[in-house]
Amino acid sequence: MLKHNTYFEGGVQSIGFERNSLRASVGVIAPGEYHFGTAAAERMTVVSGLLQAKVGELGWLNYPAGTSFEIGANSGFDVRAVGGPAAYLCEFLGA
Amino acid sequence: MLKHNTYFEGGVQSIGFERNSLRASVGVIAPGEYHFGTAAAERMTVVSGLLQAKVGELGWLNYPAGTSFEIGANSGFDVRAVGGPAAYLCEFLGA
Repeated sequence: MLKHNTYFEGGVQSIGFERNSLRASVGVIAPGEYHFGTAAAERMTVVSGLLQAKVGELGWLNYPAGTSFEIGANSGFDVRAVGGPAAYLCEFLGA
Repeated sequence: MLKHNTYFEGGVQSIGFERNSLRASVGVIAPGEYHFGTAAAERMTVVSGLLQAKVGELGWLNYPAGTSFEIGANSGFDVRAVGGPAAYLCEFLGA
């Protein structure tokens, strides 16, 4: 029911779950810069630490703990953790 | 740097990390009831879903997403996820 995912040689790891037919995951991003592609649209909420993300035409923006950003379907985003690992909640918004 | 932990045959899984010399983890609790012991004191913040927890002399209390509870050092708590898996941030408060 819970699924451990690892990306970029362990630099990003998450635990996936599903509730009320909505998929989500919580994970941690180690310092470094990563690119993720999206199939469904996603909302990323920073749970601990500081993420910087570049989504679409926007440049790099700061997302401290408690803030969130959304990424459209069939798209992607660049992300980096600043000052240490950062934890996030990723909610899949699409069908 | 990031460490995947699995408890109760995969019913609880987390990703551990450290920032500014403070240890923390994000994880997911599948439906069911679990007991955890503590060495250092901990703060558990519910990130998604609903947890019920029994800490010390308090009975079972509800902790919906956005709320948190603390557990003393060298102690323990019972916890259960209600209505589906729940995600949490665990911060270790002790030395």
